Amino acid sequence: MIHKSILIILTHIVFKKIKTILKGLLYNQSDMENTFFSSTEASKITGCSRRQLQYWREKGVIVPTVNASGKGRNVYYSVSDLLELMVMEYLLSVGLSFETAQESLEMLRKKQPELFKANASSGKLKRLMILLSPNQLELAEYDAEEAFLRVNRHGLPLIPFSGEMIHRHLYDNLKRFNNEIF
Amino acid sequence: MIHKSILIILTHIVFKKIKTILKGLLYNQSDMENTFFSSTEASKITGCSRRQLQYWREKGVIVPTVNASGKGRNVYYSVSDLLELMVMEYLLSVGLSFETAQESLEMLRKKQPELFKANASSGKLKRLMILLSPNQLELAEYDAEEAFLRVNRHGLPLIPFSGEMIHRHLYDNLKRFNNEIF
Repeated sequence: MIHKSILIILTHIVFKKIKTILKGLLYNQSDMENTFFSSTEASKITGCSRRQLQYWREKGVIVPTVNASGKGRNVYYSVSDLLELMVMEYLLSVGLSFETAQESLEMLRKKQPELFKANASSGKLKRLMILLSPNQLELAEYDAEEAFLRVNRHGLPLIPFSGEMIHRHLYDNLKRFNNEIF
Repeated sequence: MIHKSILIILTHIVFKKIKTILKGLLYNQSDMENTFFSSTEASKITGCSRRQLQYWREKGVIVPTVNASGKGRNVYYSVSDLLELMVMEYLLSVGLSFETAQESLEMLRKKQPELFKANASSGKLKRLMILLSPNQLELAEYDAEEAFLRVNRHGLPLIPFSGEMIHRHLYDNLKRFNNEIF
């Protein structure tokens, strides 16, 4: 009887240890580049709906790294793809139109490609600002004085953009997701 | 021969005088409340497409004062309706989604009803700011310090909103429109 209890406890300890090691592997950001997520997983992690993901694949907005054709069941998103999804999700959640969010994403890819690298080292991502004005969209490095002038004197909209925040959100979500599956 | 020329010149002068009187009547802002515009005219004046106008009528976003059913050919927009169209046009032109623009319009109707009055006296319309944050939309009176804190410290989007500008734009467009039809 006592031997059985000890066995159960030992099994439990060993199982926990394995869980920790596996989690450690998943969190290891240097391995992140080779981690891929299914469409359902990507949806859970980023908060984008599966319908959105499918729509963006069809429109060529965010095309998963594995099976870029966007068809069939073999659709897999890299961490870089997830970062793009997080950007779209953020821009849409603050009320921008699909077209504006898509255009902003394209400008971000050009102006700050390191934003979409799984291992972008913290502090390397400069704050940006999306400058909206009637039928015009610009992306610039954040400048407090310029931002204030624009909003206060010219009465024009401004969307501050922090790549750091996007990375932090994604890694928080990934942690939560990994905790759920173990 | 000379008599004919004089007649032409006189006719021209009389015609110009009539034009001026008619224009004066149209510009008389106190009469603006009783002026109505067809769907095509409203589209030309505000820059919204006829398709947008129809879509918004069907969705109940902006329903013209005359024939509120939105069906048939007897659709007429008041100046108050044109002001609402100008607001939608502006918010969409800076990149907001249809839903966000519609929600902002509804909040503006509640918070600043005088914005949609044809004769709102200049200086009565306070500056406002639309505060966007993930899945939340607020409308507040513009405050430079608060605006700066929000953008600079909290990194949140901000859309300054000036009712004065909307009125000025509409009356400029109306002037241009009236010059075109005469």
